[in-house]
Amino acid sequence: VLVKKGETTRTHLFVQPKNEEMELWTGVRLGADAAKERFEVDEAHSIETFDEVMGELLKESNHLYFDLFSDHERYSTLRTLCSSLLHDRKVNRSPRSFFDVTEPLQQMRLIKSDEEIALIRKALAITQEAHHSAMRLAEPDMFEYELQANIEYVFKLSGAYSDAYTTIVASGNNANTLHYITNSDTLKAGELLLIDAGCEYRMYASDITRTFPVSGKFSPAQREVYEMVLDAQLAVIDLIKPGVTKKFLQTESEHLLAAGMVRLGILEGDVEELVEAKAHKKYFPHGIGHWMGLDVHDPCPYVDEHGHDLRLLPGMVMTIEPGIYIRQDDSTVPEKYRGIGIRIEDNILVTKEGCENLSAGIAKTVEEVEAACR
Amino acid sequence: VLVKKGETTRTHLFVQPKNEEMELWTGVRLGADAAKERFEVDEAHSIETFDEVMGELLKESNHLYFDLFSDHERYSTLRTLCSSLLHDRKVNRSPRSFFDVTEPLQQMRLIKSDEEIALIRKALAITQEAHHSAMRLAEPDMFEYELQANIEYVFKLSGAYSDAYTTIVASGNNANTLHYITNSDTLKAGELLLIDAGCEYRMYASDITRTFPVSGKFSPAQREVYEMVLDAQLAVIDLIKPGVTKKFLQTESEHLLAAGMVRLGILEGDVEELVEAKAHKKYFPHGIGHWMGLDVHDPCPYVDEHGHDLRLLPGMVMTIEPGIYIRQDDSTVPEKYRGIGIRIEDNILVTKEGCENLSAGIAKTVEEVEAACR
Amino acid sequence: VLVKKGETTRTHLFVQPKNEEMELWTGVRLGADAAKERFEVDEAHSIETFDEVMGELLKESNHLYFDLFSDHERYSTLRTLCSSLLHDRKVNRSPRSFFDVTEPLQQMRLIKSDEEIALIRKALAITQEAHHSAMRLAEPDMFEYELQANIEYVFKLSGAYSDAYTTIVASGNNANTLHYITNSDTLKAGELLLIDAGCEYRMYASDITRTFPVSGKFSPAQREVYEMVLDAQLAVIDLIKPGVTKKFLQTESEHLLAAGMVRLGILEGDVEELVEAKAHKKYFPHGIGHWMGLDVHDPCPYVDEHGHDLRLLPGMVMTIEPGIYIRQDDSTVPEKYRGIGIRIEDNILVTKEGCENLSAGIAKTVEEVEAACR
Amino acid sequence: VLVKKGETTRTHLFVQPKNEEMELWTGVRLGADAAKERFEVDEAHSIETFDEVMGELLKESNHLYFDLFSDHERYSTLRTLCSSLLHDRKVNRSPRSFFDVTEPLQQMRLIKSDEEIALIRKALAITQEAHHSAMRLAEPDMFEYELQANIEYVFKLSGAYSDAYTTIVASGNNANTLHYITNSDTLKAGELLLIDAGCEYRMYASDITRTFPVSGKFSPAQREVYEMVLDAQLAVIDLIKPGVTKKFLQTESEHLLAAGMVRLGILEGDVEELVEAKAHKKYFPHGIGHWMGLDVHDPCPYVDEHGHDLRLLPGMVMTIEPGIYIRQDDSTVPEKYRGIGIRIEDNILVTKEGCENLSAGIAKTVEEVEAACR
Repeated sequence: VLVKKGETTRTHLFVQPKNEEMELWTGVRLGADAAKERFEVDEAHSIETFDEVMGELLKESNHLYFDLFSDHERYSTLRTLCSSLLHDRKVNRSPRSFFDVTEPLQQMRLIKSDEEIALIRKALAITQEAHHSAMRLAEPDMFEYELQANIEYVFKLSGAYSDAYTTIVASGNNANTLHYITNSDTLKAGELLLIDAGCEYRMYASDITRTFPVSGKFSPAQREVYEMVLDAQLAVIDLIKPGVTKKFLQTESEHLLAAGMVRLGILEGDVEELVEAKAHKKYFPHGIGHWMGLDVHDPCPYVDEHGHDLRLLPGMVMTIEPGIYIRQDDSTVPEKYRGIGIRIEDNILVTKEGCENLSAGIAKTVEEVEAACR
Repeated sequence: VLVKKGETTRTHLFVQPKNEEMELWTGVRLGADAAKERFEVDEAHSIETFDEVMGELLKESNHLYFDLFSDHERYSTLRTLCSSLLHDRKVNRSPRSFFDVTEPLQQMRLIKSDEEIALIRKALAITQEAHHSAMRLAEPDMFEYELQANIEYVFKLSGAYSDAYTTIVASGNNANTLHYITNSDTLKAGELLLIDAGCEYRMYASDITRTFPVSGKFSPAQREVYEMVLDAQLAVIDLIKPGVTKKFLQTESEHLLAAGMVRLGILEGDVEELVEAKAHKKYFPHGIGHWMGLDVHDPCPYVDEHGHDLRLLPGMVMTIEPGIYIRQDDSTVPEKYRGIGIRIEDNILVTKEGCENLSAGIAKTVEEVEAACR
Repeated sequence: VLVKKGETTRTHLFVQPKNEEMELWTGVRLGADAAKERFEVDEAHSIETFDEVMGELLKESNHLYFDLFSDHERYSTLRTLCSSLLHDRKVNRSPRSFFDVTEPLQQMRLIKSDEEIALIRKALAITQEAHHSAMRLAEPDMFEYELQANIEYVFKLSGAYSDAYTTIVASGNNANTLHYITNSDTLKAGELLLIDAGCEYRMYASDITRTFPVSGKFSPAQREVYEMVLDAQLAVIDLIKPGVTKKFLQTESEHLLAAGMVRLGILEGDVEELVEAKAHKKYFPHGIGHWMGLDVHDPCPYVDEHGHDLRLLPGMVMTIEPGIYIRQDDSTVPEKYRGIGIRIEDNILVTKEGCENLSAGIAKTVEEVEAACR
Repeated sequence: VLVKKGETTRTHLFVQPKNEEMELWTGVRLGADAAKERFEVDEAHSIETFDEVMGELLKESNHLYFDLFSDHERYSTLRTLCSSLLHDRKVNRSPRSFFDVTEPLQQMRLIKSDEEIALIRKALAITQEAHHSAMRLAEPDMFEYELQANIEYVFKLSGAYSDAYTTIVASGNNANTLHYITNSDTLKAGELLLIDAGCEYRMYASDITRTFPVSGKFSPAQREVYEMVLDAQLAVIDLIKPGVTKKFLQTESEHLLAAGMVRLGILEGDVEELVEAKAHKKYFPHGIGHWMGLDVHDPCPYVDEHGHDLRLLPGMVMTIEPGIYIRQDDSTVPEKYRGIGIRIEDNILVTKEGCENLSAGIAKTVEEVEAACR
């Protein structure tokens, strides 16, 4: 809780109170006094005094910022408190306007500080180890979940608190279900394996997808599609620099992938007309990327308060993840490509001059991937 | 619903839709088309389309004014609508701040227009007839509710939609229960009768109290207290003019009534010290008055947004209603005064030069009251 | 609150606590001790101890009866209490089944005791005076609300706490809006006036409708329709006796009125076929009657727990209220009948041998009505 | 949903409808038709038709079983549906009593079938491998979370869907926080390590605790406490047979551990008096065990509907988990014992003749444990 009165701003923190019996079960609690020092706030209170303390702080305030759209009981308590103050004859002022505090918070999360970027780099170092380990271990007849188990083992062993999202280990046609997380199939020789996995390190996420051959070597057809997606990814990353919008990257990637698909015979016709008719969306149905940070999908805005597209600025971090998904039963596509699902995803930092691929160390070219699989 | 976009403001009204079957039971409905013309709004809609229409109107708006502290389902619908828009990827803007619309509405109700004052005058003319009728009819052995019945008969017969609040007919010691509305006792010779009754005419309230002798003539002790309260009321009304605060009127009335009680021997000691110790509050426990208008207690503010007392302005309307309530069982008071409860209430309009008593026509001096009782 | 443990049943009552300051404003409160004696319950408690006391009473109970479908906060408190008891390791039993207490209460309200019937008779005596007074006073150019004012004046003057429902005073074509309560029109010579009005006396309702000529004399066409409706009403009342179902009375009344309308030329065709096609519903769209008691529409069931129609028993009280409503703009009906709306409603007690019309004293035949209008 | 009408009972299942776009993202849905066949129900419906279908099923039912104390929106929908049916004049019957369906479900979960026991055995086989692996790998200077990572790796690699609860890896004094799950400390030579970990296999849980020396060998003091706890655990398991209550096992275990503590000098005084005064609870603050099955704490009752203690029956499965927790800073205890926290937990099946320790294969004696640590 931040309270601003006239010139001064004061921070208040509510924490669980000391309680010997509870601490026997769930571990040490700081309590209000120690928390005040530890977290360097102006005042700390037991959460049990929330109603009482807030009741006092709300007097003399006209505006209140909180999570306007959360159904948490705490927020309906704030509304109730304001309502009682409003009807209390002894109180002259109380909040009569509510602001969504997530809006400024989401703004603040757009630009990462150096400390934040360092944590993302660390998360990516662990994630790199996990992906390389999976490439090394994968072989026919394994269960997909065995690789999931190995990836999460590497994460935890390296001190990552948890995965940043449920790991996707999708072999063969399973890759064409975008959020495939059952991971219960067996790997088959000759198929591709798509792994989308990232860890969370000290609250910061990573989000990496690699696609590689179960048997360690791409077939010619797999290689054709893989390199087409990779070329598109590299081209889009090349476009990233301050001033560019995400919508521009989206449009470019759709054209690049559509052109690639025409080249391979997956689509037929004029590229511009196909894009216009959204024909490419059948095989590339998702976005080219998203903000990343404290959350894997960092909930920052893509538009400003007037609804205009935001322009990239140094310090922003986003994923770039083109993909092509061709279902096994899609008879409109040359047979050799059916059942192929490929996504290649990296995490990109916008810099003053352009951008930096924070996950550049993870095997990505055909040669690197095949080497890592050995 | 008012919607402001850029330069323009548009009004939207939601009404019940035409429905032949329902109209057979509850009468004719205008429906959206006729309502638009009748109420001169930019657009009118069936209330059944509320979610859909509001969903569209809320897009492209950053702020939303509504009754923030009402539990009406309609308002939680608005919050839900904003929440879905916020999470709808196709929508770029939606309200993320909520303002209490009752705040500006309450401001707008402070100053009455000429049309509003004319309706209050009409309500008071009807109320005058009702009070005079009650004075004429009251006699020992009647039930209090018989006078209530008569007052409400006069109200309705004169075209007043309803009473503005439940009529108080309190004889003798009953007057010392401030909101006595059981009205089930019988009038007794020698007792006083306090009637607090006002009607609502075309949505505008009146609020008048008179106290008179059941038998038509004040006893000496009753007259002493009555004239003391009346003098205080007249003195307070005399103070009303632009620039004065309600708090000032309250303080003055407390001093006047305390001084009067010392004079009569109801309180003993130094007036200033008694007021300081709030000794007078035992006999004058309520406020000197309140705003009046669309509601009998018009919910307008008494302080500004900084918590400072509002100053009176021309066009404001308030009640002035000093009272003295001495319970039958109060042995600290001279016996002759016990069981006496008196309140005298008028409705006052602040004018440029001072004020006008809108209810000046209702019998109030001892002579006027005794004449009206005959 | 009733609590049954093993052999014994104990009653608990929750009341507002004594509070001197509140009683100054709103009048004397009994408080728990006096309430226990006054209402002859086993225990009485302050409502402020509701959660605590109920928390104790709910332990060791397996079933809980309350108003299952009310949104009152008190009932969601009961659910919350049961939920905490269920999760309290120190508590071995708590309610895990909820029953709708209104179901047995509604059963209990079906059969009226002698004391209840006496109160209904008293309510009807007052209502009789009000209707006769309205017949006497009505004359062209009066406002409908003037008669409403008079009726309510008679109610209150006679000690009835309030009306049992909003009074309907519907002149001419207004009678064809079933719940017409605006009452703002003027009476016109030659038109009929339908008044549906009843008072509530010591919590018991009455519900009476009479239709009479504004000028005191029925026109031939009005008389034709009136007597047709009256004949039907008398015939239906004649059918009431123990064992009969409300559905039977409904069916009979629909046939009687349909036959009457064919006779008058309002409907054309075979009576049975017309009823089969629901043609009569255009002019008689409502039910023939309803339970009456503590509520004007007493919420007792019409079917038993298996969904079968209830059979009448001695002590039940219901209204019998056939009506014919012919809109002014209905060009399918002989011109002389247009704009006529008639309802005749009495309150009937089922007796051992048959029934008693509790409102038999109110003018109903053409001769009685015309006499009362003089 | 189960519906019982007269003689017949029919099962209804609600599932997510087929939806090509959603399935692209989250995988194949069965849809209502395939679900009906797959799950062998009488009828299957899309969940989107819940209100409509239930609205029909609720007609003609007098009772409704559901999760009475859940706040899930679906349950408040059922209440709303019943309320509308009750007020729908065309509906003759609808539920007016609500029963907590979790009550019979919890009863049904008390006795495990052979198929259920087989799944628990499989979960325990995996858990055995994980505990043995941890004993083998543990060594000074490792982080606690490294062992957690290894345990969860074994779980997942063996096909267990997830852990049955968050793994506790508590070295040294951390073991004295009962639900220690930060797992962020380093193992120190000479300390004990308490691991409480179990997996969930095809929905069925296991729940095992073992305590072993980081360096592979118990110190004399550690061994004294360990064997005392182990003796108590074995003695309590020996008592388990049909007819015994959990309360009896609790009482016995408290006496056994109190006697042990007196023997070691942790407590001083008469065992009976110490137990009476609950002195042992300082070191053994928790229960001796709990039901286990679909949940690790299976929510079955410990008392019958009259509040009497349930007696064990063949097929019940419970944990037996005595423990002694001596905080490092507890100066009332001989120094050599301070900082020792020990819990030994097995999963026991009640059989016709007595019981079977389902987790008998996991190293538990000092010799077995020390061997497993090598």
